[in-house]
Amino acid sequence: MTDPDLTAALTDLARACRILEMEGHGDMTLGHLSLRDPAGRGFWMKRNRIGLGEVLGPDDFVLVDSDGEKIAGSGGRHSEWPIHSEILRVRADVQVVAHTHPFHACVFSASLDPLAPSTLDADYFVAVPRHEDEVALITTKDEGAALARALGLHVAVFMASHGVTFCGTSVMHATCVGVFLEKAARRSSQAWARASAPACRTRRRASGDTARS
Amino acid sequence: MTDPDLTAALTDLARACRILEMEGHGDMTLGHLSLRDPAGRGFWMKRNRIGLGEVLGPDDFVLVDSDGEKIAGSGGRHSEWPIHSEILRVRADVQVVAHTHPFHACVFSASLDPLAPSTLDADYFVAVPRHEDEVALITTKDEGAALARALGLHVAVFMASHGVTFCGTSVMHATCVGVFLEKAARRSSQAWARASAPACRTRRRASGDTARS
Amino acid sequence: MTDPDLTAALTDLARACRILEMEGHGDMTLGHLSLRDPAGRGFWMKRNRIGLGEVLGPDDFVLVDSDGEKIAGSGGRHSEWPIHSEILRVRADVQVVAHTHPFHACVFSASLDPLAPSTLDADYFVAVPRHEDEVALITTKDEGAALARALGLHVAVFMASHGVTFCGTSVMHATCVGVFLEKAARRSSQAWARASAPACRTRRRASGDTARS
Amino acid sequence: MTDPDLTAALTDLARACRILEMEGHGDMTLGHLSLRDPAGRGFWMKRNRIGLGEVLGPDDFVLVDSDGEKIAGSGGRHSEWPIHSEILRVRADVQVVAHTHPFHACVFSASLDPLAPSTLDADYFVAVPRHEDEVALITTKDEGAALARALGLHVAVFMASHGVTFCGTSVMHATCVGVFLEKAARRSSQAWARASAPACRTRRRASGDTARS
Repeated sequence: MTDPDLTAALTDLARACRILEMEGHGDMTLGHLSLRDPAGRGFWMKRNRIGLGEVLGPDDFVLVDSDGEKIAGSGGRHSEWPIHSEILRVRADVQVVAHTHPFHACVFSASLDPLAPSTLDADYFVAVPRHEDEVALITTKDEGAALARALGLHVAVFMASHGVTFCGTSVMHATCVGVFLEKAARRSSQAWARASAPACRTRRRASGDTARS
Repeated sequence: MTDPDLTAALTDLARACRILEMEGHGDMTLGHLSLRDPAGRGFWMKRNRIGLGEVLGPDDFVLVDSDGEKIAGSGGRHSEWPIHSEILRVRADVQVVAHTHPFHACVFSASLDPLAPSTLDADYFVAVPRHEDEVALITTKDEGAALARALGLHVAVFMASHGVTFCGTSVMHATCVGVFLEKAARRSSQAWARASAPACRTRRRASGDTARS
Repeated sequence: MTDPDLTAALTDLARACRILEMEGHGDMTLGHLSLRDPAGRGFWMKRNRIGLGEVLGPDDFVLVDSDGEKIAGSGGRHSEWPIHSEILRVRADVQVVAHTHPFHACVFSASLDPLAPSTLDADYFVAVPRHEDEVALITTKDEGAALARALGLHVAVFMASHGVTFCGTSVMHATCVGVFLEKAARRSSQAWARASAPACRTRRRASGDTARS
Repeated sequence: MTDPDLTAALTDLARACRILEMEGHGDMTLGHLSLRDPAGRGFWMKRNRIGLGEVLGPDDFVLVDSDGEKIAGSGGRHSEWPIHSEILRVRADVQVVAHTHPFHACVFSASLDPLAPSTLDADYFVAVPRHEDEVALITTKDEGAALARALGLHVAVFMASHGVTFCGTSVMHATCVGVFLEKAARRSSQAWARASAPACRTRRRASGDTARS
């Protein structure tokens, strides 16, 4: 890996893994992030058998092609590679795909309750789609394609009684999506844990200035 | 900034920012506190692009006039300056204004449930007003004035599905208001998370001696 | 204070204050423990204006007589001394009295729900009495006597929308009562936060061997 | 203890105790794990009067025979030895037995609600049996045998308003059972703390590949 831009991008992606671990996305060695290969060979995916918090740098990713073949890097390939290949196939805007098991979002994945928009960042997640599947793991292209269809043009999808998949136009974007999604789920859990339902409401979408409010 | 009193006050205000971060008010780089300028030029407001926990001293504040112009200090101005200008305009008793996104109070902001007075400090928050607005951010004087009207003579106001604004007659007072408000919201969340509603009650207001009980 | 036994007992009592802080009983500078004076002069009570976690040793206690007069020690006397004087007056078995504001027990104090016995140590708290009072603070002998009547022969009493008072035959006993009471309240909060009520039940009281099970 | 294999196994078992403490199974000095003695003399059981997090190595276990007699090791024997003897008697597949009081599983033990399968690892615990007993502690062979019958062929059993007992075919297996059981209980507590019940569902059992997904 001698391309300095790629090395920098994977260094960022490794940091994103560690940030997501700190923000509640870690679950043993489960969960994985990927970056679309800039040379068009497929995607760089976190290697298996280490936790998100143990991803230290570019060497912790392997290059996987669109058929799931590992074509570069050392370490094993997670079996759920089709989550990444199939979303990257149909979403040209997406550079980064992530699949994790964050505590509160997992609880939401098992429920039909909507997220309650209790803060500005929750505005981003008004209607997160929910994918239900008979299989526990997404290990075939067909299963990955079905998940990609459920995701549609959204940035995140709940996987029923399993976890979440989310994505972004950059490492930074996907990381923020993951962080805010889990925060929204945690706040919503508190909101729904009431004798009365929360006074959900919609508002004019926050402007791009939100992040600097 | 050569006025030693002002330097001391902003040093206190910086510490208040860090205390509030520790007490659950931090939310990335969002949230801001301000101090009425003793020379009548406007207010000293936390600069943007840093978190509450990263406010280290007087240099992390900028002087903003009543029209939102930055007239001293380095660093950017948060877009929500009218929260501060409009409250300080109508509340001569207030020296410090704060706007934050504490976890539990945000959940309450999205609900119509009242706070449950489960402790003595909760007595301070028997009827916190709730401001509902179509905009996500308060960026105009009119929006700030509407929030100030909702606040009225109270020390805190919930901003529906957004956060809280609170104030005090001193740095210490405003800090305690923020800390106790979030504690009251957290306790109330537990109280409302029941099959049965809490046995809310009012009592004779705690005397001034409460703080030393 | 040259009595080595008293010094040792107050050193233990100071440690109990710090343990209770770690176990969730701390609330700013509020809360206080006392030890019956072995010489019959009254009771040694934590001094005010410091938190439970800041009680370092014997010098952090003051000797208070049965009329609330401080007769030894430096530092201020909490205004709620009658909690201690009136319980010690009628409960000859009690050596240590504590009044604190633990998070979960405070939430329970505002509710009429019983504690749910979800563990063995909760067996100790099957029917904790609840004291309701119009005053926020217990600052007179009459108010203290009313609280002592509510406590009766129990080891703990909820003070409605305020906190708890508990006691024991030794420093170690009272500390365990406080720790287990808050644990029972925390577990019960989870148990009551359900669509369905917990399957509460009673069983033969755990034997004295419980602590070594 | 000069058998290097046994020393290695008990070193692993000690680490399992510390892992379980970190994962929420600790409760003062309560709780114990055991390993079937490879020489057929009984089982090696954590000694009493220390917490799970204080188990440092092989010397913290005592060898207990099937009648509860300590036949090797220093330190005291927990009174609940029949939990171990009676499960090991009827479950030839089991090498490790554990009894603990994890917070969330204890709350579930007091309830008749099923665990909600909100994640893949929860699939492992679709129908955890529940043992109800009049006694607080399991101190006789009859009581232990009743618990073993309730456990049946499962890997875990809730002990009503008391705690859990779980087991495994190896130290690693039993540890994972304990960790995942408490995680499932914690997630289920959140799921049940809703105005609406969770959309529980079953799916095809996750394949053996799950752990490497």
